[in-house]
Amino acid sequence: MALYVQKFGGTSVADPERISEVVDHVRRTVARGDQVVMVVSAMGKETDELLRLANEVSDVRPGREMDMLITAGERKAVALVAMALHGAGIPADSFTGSQAGIITDTTHENARIEEVMADRIKESLAAGSVPVVAGSQGMSTDKEVTFLGRGGSDTTAVALAHRLEADACELYTDVPGVFTTDPRLVTNARKMSHLSFDELLEMTACGCPKPAMRSVEYAHRHGVALHIRSAFTWEQGTWVNEEGSMERAIVTAVVHDMSEAKVTISHVPDEPGIAARLFRTLADEDVNVDMIVQNVSNEGVTDISFTVPMSQLDGAVAAANGLGIGQVTSDDKIGKISLIGAGMKSNPGVAAQMFETLAENGINIQMLSTSGIRISAIVDAGRTEDAVNVLHAAFELDRPVF
Amino acid sequence: MALYVQKFGGTSVADPERISEVVDHVRRTVARGDQVVMVVSAMGKETDELLRLANEVSDVRPGREMDMLITAGERKAVALVAMALHGAGIPADSFTGSQAGIITDTTHENARIEEVMADRIKESLAAGSVPVVAGSQGMSTDKEVTFLGRGGSDTTAVALAHRLEADACELYTDVPGVFTTDPRLVTNARKMSHLSFDELLEMTACGCPKPAMRSVEYAHRHGVALHIRSAFTWEQGTWVNEEGSMERAIVTAVVHDMSEAKVTISHVPDEPGIAARLFRTLADEDVNVDMIVQNVSNEGVTDISFTVPMSQLDGAVAAANGLGIGQVTSDDKIGKISLIGAGMKSNPGVAAQMFETLAENGINIQMLSTSGIRISAIVDAGRTEDAVNVLHAAFELDRPVF
Repeated sequence: MALYVQKFGGTSVADPERISEVVDHVRRTVARGDQVVMVVSAMGKETDELLRLANEVSDVRPGREMDMLITAGERKAVALVAMALHGAGIPADSFTGSQAGIITDTTHENARIEEVMADRIKESLAAGSVPVVAGSQGMSTDKEVTFLGRGGSDTTAVALAHRLEADACELYTDVPGVFTTDPRLVTNARKMSHLSFDELLEMTACGCPKPAMRSVEYAHRHGVALHIRSAFTWEQGTWVNEEGSMERAIVTAVVHDMSEAKVTISHVPDEPGIAARLFRTLADEDVNVDMIVQNVSNEGVTDISFTVPMSQLDGAVAAANGLGIGQVTSDDKIGKISLIGAGMKSNPGVAAQMFETLAENGINIQMLSTSGIRISAIVDAGRTEDAVNVLHAAFELDRPVF
Repeated sequence: MALYVQKFGGTSVADPERISEVVDHVRRTVARGDQVVMVVSAMGKETDELLRLANEVSDVRPGREMDMLITAGERKAVALVAMALHGAGIPADSFTGSQAGIITDTTHENARIEEVMADRIKESLAAGSVPVVAGSQGMSTDKEVTFLGRGGSDTTAVALAHRLEADACELYTDVPGVFTTDPRLVTNARKMSHLSFDELLEMTACGCPKPAMRSVEYAHRHGVALHIRSAFTWEQGTWVNEEGSMERAIVTAVVHDMSEAKVTISHVPDEPGIAARLFRTLADEDVNVDMIVQNVSNEGVTDISFTVPMSQLDGAVAAANGLGIGQVTSDDKIGKISLIGAGMKSNPGVAAQMFETLAENGINIQMLSTSGIRISAIVDAGRTEDAVNVLHAAFELDRPVF
């Protein structure tokens, strides 16, 4: 008998029909003789709706009250799912984060899990029931209701899987797994059967619709095996663990992100402390800087480029202009493409092959940055889709590896 | 400095606009230097919407899960109201029933309050904040979330007012108080300034849109002064306490109820045990019998009539037919009118004057029942409005009494 923590996101429980599909799914796992702990997010767009109401009601929205409000969404969802399980003849008990023993710090709206008690979850399992736990919520060390932030249900699921020593933490989504690239862009994108935590973290950081980064970090730290799969099929999804695939592919995936814009400051005096002033100013304005590139100095002046989320472009440009350290220009017609693969560390030829492939296809690289297992390039927005396709083909990512 | 528990129903917090009116109301009470504890129901029709979802999701709806679901509504409302108070510069803290220390028995969907701790409410007040408490919910003695039933927010408010020794429990509604009769029917219906608990209980039992009966009983038992008033004006409403009015009116109010139907069983053998069998059968079918009238026996047979809620008429008729004790007929075109007044006990002339008034106006009485401070009559549905008008005039209820 195995124990699975199964997490279902908002799309999977958006309406009574979807809920009944989820119930059917759980029913089959239980019928196999396995145990299930469910973690459920708020239904469909409910969290957005609650945020909209809060905005309408007040300009002052204390974190404590926001958390009380938002967590009502998951509470509603778990009660309905538990009822639906009863309706299908499966004993079930819903639990709020607090009842499930999820103890967090006191940071409202973005609380961190400090401890997982799970006594009532264990009792419910022992009684032959399916515990249905409200995702992304807990009780703080000072007894307040806390919300773990958007995507926090993944973290709840991973934390429970760790505490209950579950055989796997299954994260159900509306896609059947993690692909070598975006299947909407590349027709022969391939679903990966295995992936390492490091690779998934790099993909998540690159803006793919993957599990919340915190939950992957949590799973990584505690060695919780993740299984990312579809809520609407029974096919195997993508397993994420320490080793990743037995397959020794050098490059695992190509991901892209169209949500960023580029800021360039030219004719910056090449003096110590200039870059520090710039990025301190941006940090103070809560601008999330992603890639940073500084060219080599030429006649005492240099150029600094960086990318920011499209929505923060105006703020970033204003902040940069305010410093008066050079000429500020910006470009929101860019795309970021990243090659990801744990095998890249020991294969210096990957970068060269990437640049050659792009050059052969007339795609210009505007900015470049690398990590141990990732190479990211900024290209023209209009060429992003081409870039993803030619790289996916060049690295033969469509070919199954064993 | 006085302390008021102010309870606002679903209509009063139905949308952001209404919430801001309620906030303005509380702001003025606080500006006077008084303390407020708010009790808030779920927004508008939210509870109905949650029930609809539950019905859609499953045929099996365990009470524990229903309570988890329904209480999400008030949780959302208190968070939004607390935020809106902050937005108006008033410190506020929302509390679930459990956080407010409302301890109930373990009867789901209709829990009874066993104890009120209110420690966190007192702390919030001491810190100069307005505690905003989710109505109609608590935590059971076995640590489960419980719902007090529809109208339970009134009970929460009364219980908190008692525990906190508040100066009054103000129940805000969408009408300015309790009237001598339905103002929609009688143009010179008068708002009463005072009423006794007994009178209000009789009126509530007669189907008027008044505070939930349980809350009035609770207030009566513990001597909590109620003030029933409008959420949208500052005029005084109706005070309810032990004595009622100083005014010694014999009749206080005329109320009516169109929601019942009548069942008559004729040619019933006048034997001991027949009535017992009938009403045991109806009770087993969960039929709520209201008035019961049995005529004197005539040649060994008698007639039994009773009223039931319109929605239960078919079930009641079927149950009565199943017994085979006589000929069953029914009538859903009836109205119930009731005269209410603490002074009636010592004034036997009231019933006579009531019958005369109805007779003079050609209104036939089909059934009759009385309590110490109430006389109820069933009349033809089409004459109910007339009956209310002529009785209101005959007992001069439009005349202010001091």
